[in-house]
Amino acid sequence: MRRESRLIVWIWWIVVVTALFLLGFVIGWFAKPTHPNAANNGASSKYLREFLDEMKPEHIREHLRKFTQLPHLAGTEQNLRYAEQIKKEWLEFGLDSVEMVPYDVLLSYPNKSKPNYISIVDHLGKEVFNTSLAEPVPEGYEGVSDIVPPYSAFSAKGQPEGELLYVNYGRTEDFFQLEREMGLSAAGKIVIVRYGKIFRGNKVKNAILAGAKGIIMFSDPADYWAVGVQPYPDGWNLPGGGAQRGNVLNLNGAGDPLTPGYPAKEYTYRLSLRDGVGLPKIPVHPIGFHDAIHLLKNMGGQIPPNNWKGALNVSYRIGPGFTDDFKNQTVRMNVYTNNQVTRIYNVIGKIRGALEPDRYVILGGHRDAWVFGGIDPMSGAAVVHETVRSAGRLLSKGWRPRRTIIFASWDAEEFGLQGSTEWAEDNAKLLQERAVAYINADSAIEGMYTLRVDCTPSLHTLVYDLTKQIDSPEEGEDGVSLYESWHKRDNWTNDRDAPKISKLGSGSDFEAYFIRLGIAAGRARYTKNKKTERYSSYPVYHSVYETFEIVEKFYDPSFKRLQAVAQVRGGLIFLLADSQLLPLDVNEYADSLRKYAQSIAQLAQRHPEEMELYKVTFDSLFSAVENFTVAASGLHERLQTLNRADPLQVRVMNDQLMYLERAFIDPLGLPGRPFYRHVIFAPSSHNKYAGESFPGIYDALFDIENSADPQKSWEEVKRQISIATFTVHAAAMTLTPPA
Amino acid sequence: MRRESRLIVWIWWIVVVTALFLLGFVIGWFAKPTHPNAANNGASSKYLREFLDEMKPEHIREHLRKFTQLPHLAGTEQNLRYAEQIKKEWLEFGLDSVEMVPYDVLLSYPNKSKPNYISIVDHLGKEVFNTSLAEPVPEGYEGVSDIVPPYSAFSAKGQPEGELLYVNYGRTEDFFQLEREMGLSAAGKIVIVRYGKIFRGNKVKNAILAGAKGIIMFSDPADYWAVGVQPYPDGWNLPGGGAQRGNVLNLNGAGDPLTPGYPAKEYTYRLSLRDGVGLPKIPVHPIGFHDAIHLLKNMGGQIPPNNWKGALNVSYRIGPGFTDDFKNQTVRMNVYTNNQVTRIYNVIGKIRGALEPDRYVILGGHRDAWVFGGIDPMSGAAVVHETVRSAGRLLSKGWRPRRTIIFASWDAEEFGLQGSTEWAEDNAKLLQERAVAYINADSAIEGMYTLRVDCTPSLHTLVYDLTKQIDSPEEGEDGVSLYESWHKRDNWTNDRDAPKISKLGSGSDFEAYFIRLGIAAGRARYTKNKKTERYSSYPVYHSVYETFEIVEKFYDPSFKRLQAVAQVRGGLIFLLADSQLLPLDVNEYADSLRKYAQSIAQLAQRHPEEMELYKVTFDSLFSAVENFTVAASGLHERLQTLNRADPLQVRVMNDQLMYLERAFIDPLGLPGRPFYRHVIFAPSSHNKYAGESFPGIYDALFDIENSADPQKSWEEVKRQISIATFTVHAAAMTLTPPA
Repeated sequence: MRRESRLIVWIWWIVVVTALFLLGFVIGWFAKPTHPNAANNGASSKYLREFLDEMKPEHIREHLRKFTQLPHLAGTEQNLRYAEQIKKEWLEFGLDSVEMVPYDVLLSYPNKSKPNYISIVDHLGKEVFNTSLAEPVPEGYEGVSDIVPPYSAFSAKGQPEGELLYVNYGRTEDFFQLEREMGLSAAGKIVIVRYGKIFRGNKVKNAILAGAKGIIMFSDPADYWAVGVQPYPDGWNLPGGGAQRGNVLNLNGAGDPLTPGYPAKEYTYRLSLRDGVGLPKIPVHPIGFHDAIHLLKNMGGQIPPNNWKGALNVSYRIGPGFTDDFKNQTVRMNVYTNNQVTRIYNVIGKIRGALEPDRYVILGGHRDAWVFGGIDPMSGAAVVHETVRSAGRLLSKGWRPRRTIIFASWDAEEFGLQGSTEWAEDNAKLLQERAVAYINADSAIEGMYTLRVDCTPSLHTLVYDLTKQIDSPEEGEDGVSLYESWHKRDNWTNDRDAPKISKLGSGSDFEAYFIRLGIAAGRARYTKNKKTERYSSYPVYHSVYETFEIVEKFYDPSFKRLQAVAQVRGGLIFLLADSQLLPLDVNEYADSLRKYAQSIAQLAQRHPEEMELYKVTFDSLFSAVENFTVAASGLHERLQTLNRADPLQVRVMNDQLMYLERAFIDPLGLPGRPFYRHVIFAPSSHNKYAGESFPGIYDALFDIENSADPQKSWEEVKRQISIATFTVHAAAMTLTPPA
Repeated sequence: MRRESRLIVWIWWIVVVTALFLLGFVIGWFAKPTHPNAANNGASSKYLREFLDEMKPEHIREHLRKFTQLPHLAGTEQNLRYAEQIKKEWLEFGLDSVEMVPYDVLLSYPNKSKPNYISIVDHLGKEVFNTSLAEPVPEGYEGVSDIVPPYSAFSAKGQPEGELLYVNYGRTEDFFQLEREMGLSAAGKIVIVRYGKIFRGNKVKNAILAGAKGIIMFSDPADYWAVGVQPYPDGWNLPGGGAQRGNVLNLNGAGDPLTPGYPAKEYTYRLSLRDGVGLPKIPVHPIGFHDAIHLLKNMGGQIPPNNWKGALNVSYRIGPGFTDDFKNQTVRMNVYTNNQVTRIYNVIGKIRGALEPDRYVILGGHRDAWVFGGIDPMSGAAVVHETVRSAGRLLSKGWRPRRTIIFASWDAEEFGLQGSTEWAEDNAKLLQERAVAYINADSAIEGMYTLRVDCTPSLHTLVYDLTKQIDSPEEGEDGVSLYESWHKRDNWTNDRDAPKISKLGSGSDFEAYFIRLGIAAGRARYTKNKKTERYSSYPVYHSVYETFEIVEKFYDPSFKRLQAVAQVRGGLIFLLADSQLLPLDVNEYADSLRKYAQSIAQLAQRHPEEMELYKVTFDSLFSAVENFTVAASGLHERLQTLNRADPLQVRVMNDQLMYLERAFIDPLGLPGRPFYRHVIFAPSSHNKYAGESFPGIYDALFDIENSADPQKSWEEVKRQISIATFTVHAAAMTLTPPA
């Protein structure tokens, strides 16, 4: 070869070598993902299937069996033992950490040596009739000790004696009807009301406001019997000797009555019992309908309207007092229940998030039960247990969620949501800054008909997507999805062709997370057919008859309904924790806000003249909702073009999604309820259970009719509209591009 | 060549080609940074130098000259014109966006046709002396209209008449001394007090609590004259005809008195004037010392203690009323000031952050002035203007900060921090979630001695680091850093060899950001020598004599002191916005908490018997501080080993740093002050200007001595210790690893 030719070969060589190197470099550069998790959603959805399939009916059955053997009231030794067992098993299942978190809160127990009861006494003061001291114990549980008799937790102590007055359900409207239409006053009387329609604590509050010196609550078959069903153990109706336990506080979200706003720790300052939040000042006691018949049957006074009549074979006369034949008899309540500061234990388990350990997805439900807790809460706790087991299996296969998952077994829910509220108070700052969502896990079943979901609007779409991936648990519905099964049983409305999802009210542990802290929240359970089954909650609610067997024999013999609920609750947690982009739908929130605004404006329109006189308008609120709608759809569009390979851009967007719910929190709280801070959702002041939208406006409108100063009341309506308007505008701002 | 040999060459070729490609790939892979900004801090610090060097004395002079030509009281046409000019110039400087943000708030102006004044009236009701209706206008400003005469903004209207009572500075302790030691009551009297020591609104509140029917405040030379200095225009002391304007509200952070908690927008519900927050119920008026002499000289009654005596040639007798020779004379106040809802304008400018647009660093200061605002606030506004100009220059060179920077020109600060508070209310959710820090920019100079910095503890280290990079503005200190110059003039204590940094109190626009929202905050200005110069604030404070000339002739002829302040304020903003890791020092917070806990415990120890009797202990607080200290140093260690190449890890860590200040916020607020929510820092209830640490405990202890029910007061001390303990523990939790 010639020199020149060799040179050319060499040059050629160098060019090729360089080109190859550069090619490699460029491919290497672009092949490297900007972030390891950038395209991870495929893997995640494979894991979702495994996660759901791992949850099995037979395991849930076993968990339920195990945790319903013995009564485990909050603050008792047995409930601590179950806590320790849960901790041990969660660690065995494979959680990264599990800890017991104690608080010292005010609980309330009957006096063991002086039972509570109600008497009819004659003119000599002799007790001619006494209510029963306990419920007949169901078969198989005869030897069990520590079954607490039916009582009203936090009742005042006392032996008030007086004439009986029947006030239907004890609602605000019942007391109004009593006073205005019947011309009767409850002052100085012992009122007797039936359970149902509203939270029992509201009945007690109403009785106190009306001046009653005691209140008796009974379960009427009209409200606690399903048609054509036998009483337990032959069916699932409430026996005549059964009665509903329950607390009668008016906490409005305060948690421990002695430490409102702060966790009940060793160093925490405690209010005196006199100043405690929500403690009733009069004796309260619950009875079953066998006992109620004796108190009601001889009552005198007016014949009540039909909607005041229950299903017992008595006249339901209003009183006050008995008919002439028994006019020398009075009623005496004997209540010796004690309040006492008691240690409770939450169990908190964690799976550390791989990429965003500082983002928390929480699945929490209570463990404490009035007696065995066959339905409330252990049907829910068993489901959580199975969810933890399934998550542990995935961990052992190498999965780890993007975000941190927190599992909670709360204590003392039955005493006013205390375990969950104290933990929320203890961790408020962390939760405000880091919590993505809270899924509640109280009773997983209250009927045999279909799924029931209550959640914040931004979770609607996720619930629908998920339930399409879960099988219907109903017999004869092989190959039918839970979504379809649910949809055909409970369509939303004529306007919306989708399964009905309701607003969150209160009455369970999501309260502090959702209504105080503004964390997106939801709950799911199996329920009855609301259209045909008119009884309140479920018949044996809070009685000794809530056993394992009532679930196994009647509610869910195959345990497939509980499995479906486990898959819904667990699937929500999974997708919230592991999706790269948070599965929260801001457009759904906009749609809901529009509906709520229309509905509250309609409510006000019942008073068109006063609206005009006091210049009340909802225009500003509608305009804010419109602004929110535009911002939401803007964010939705930006989501489509987001560069998912840029971890900071993803985080910024997720933060906007996460903080949307927080934007509805007003630190000043609703009027007179400093711990109810959610401007869009809170229970009505008149019924803790019912979730109202725009509760500030709702309550102000509710008060219009009973106001001595209508101008002042309408001013309050206007103030509340202004606050709602501001809040919706402020929430819209959080959805616009951050700079 | 043989076949085999050719094959070998081919194989060799393929191996080489592959190897080269792989080499390139691997180098390319590792050469690519995980994130573009990962190693960007070198570039950032080059830009810092350019940013600081760009700020020039002559520009600051020019800005100050430009914005002090005309009076620009909040709510006036001229203050809107300046706002528009600032908007225009900020856009020209190169900000990404600038907008005017209006609110409609309650302001207060004298009645133009009925001037305010105070008279001495004889027994026939004839006015024998009237105070002046205006200050003598300084040379060069004779033709200027719209100079508002001295008045007390938000004074009640009225013409109270009565005996005069002199109560020193009108502090809580002065009224106690009056009542307990002198046996005198202010009930039904017109009190006269000297300005100084505490916020004037607190004087008015004290007078109202004592039952006074009016209050007159005067500037005594003892408090408003520097030794050896001539009155303006020959020096910078207050002339005898000058008087201090100012609002006399007790807002405690509420902002607009009619819309507490919510921004004063068109749709916002407004309280009636009767229910407005903090509005005094009695007439109030300020006077200069020439007028004060006439009111004081004939006063009778007791001779006061020495510390009640000012520097006027009068006896400072307490009264009530005049000496026998003048006993038929009384004093009448004539106050016709009107409250009125008025539109104000903030100017908000932004530089969008390159990587974290959702993290905000704010530099805000007010624009409204009582008259020309030569010192207050335009010396500060000129500095902000120069900072914006310098930032704009950097932008034009290709720089863009990591985080978003927000510049604010607030309105109506003088009327109770209204512009800044309404904007904070309007944007509360965004700020809570996204604000990294707030740097305040009120008056940049109040003396000629050295730098003064008040800030949250986590900013200490940044302030020190930055001031070492800035030159001393003092003559003869070439090559001396601002840090050194400051350090030698104001060393912290014997225990700490560093320049003194103080706690933030209130009285300027950082209040809503720091004390209500818990955003790390600081302020910097040039100040006097506290040890030798005993006058309050600066002599001409809030008088017509705050002109451009007083700065140019006396305070900062070279404008280098203002330049240094600009570099401090601007440098803080720069480093907070552009550092990859937030320059917040959690260990400094721990050290400060320890000092504060010791100091508040010492205060309580003045009552050792009661501490024992009521079982008051600070042990839990000390233990919480210890816990916080451990958590802080743990976080500090994790910072050293943080993988700065991982943008999510960096963000998680920065979020922990950012949210630390937020952790000290209690949404329930301090007792009776719902908008003061910072558990560690708030002004004392007795003086808005003074920053107290653990203000809840401090106020409870302050009340001990005056309590009718000591047990109840000590219970409140215990409750406050418990809240502080909880808050410090909760803050410690935010510093531990997030999962």
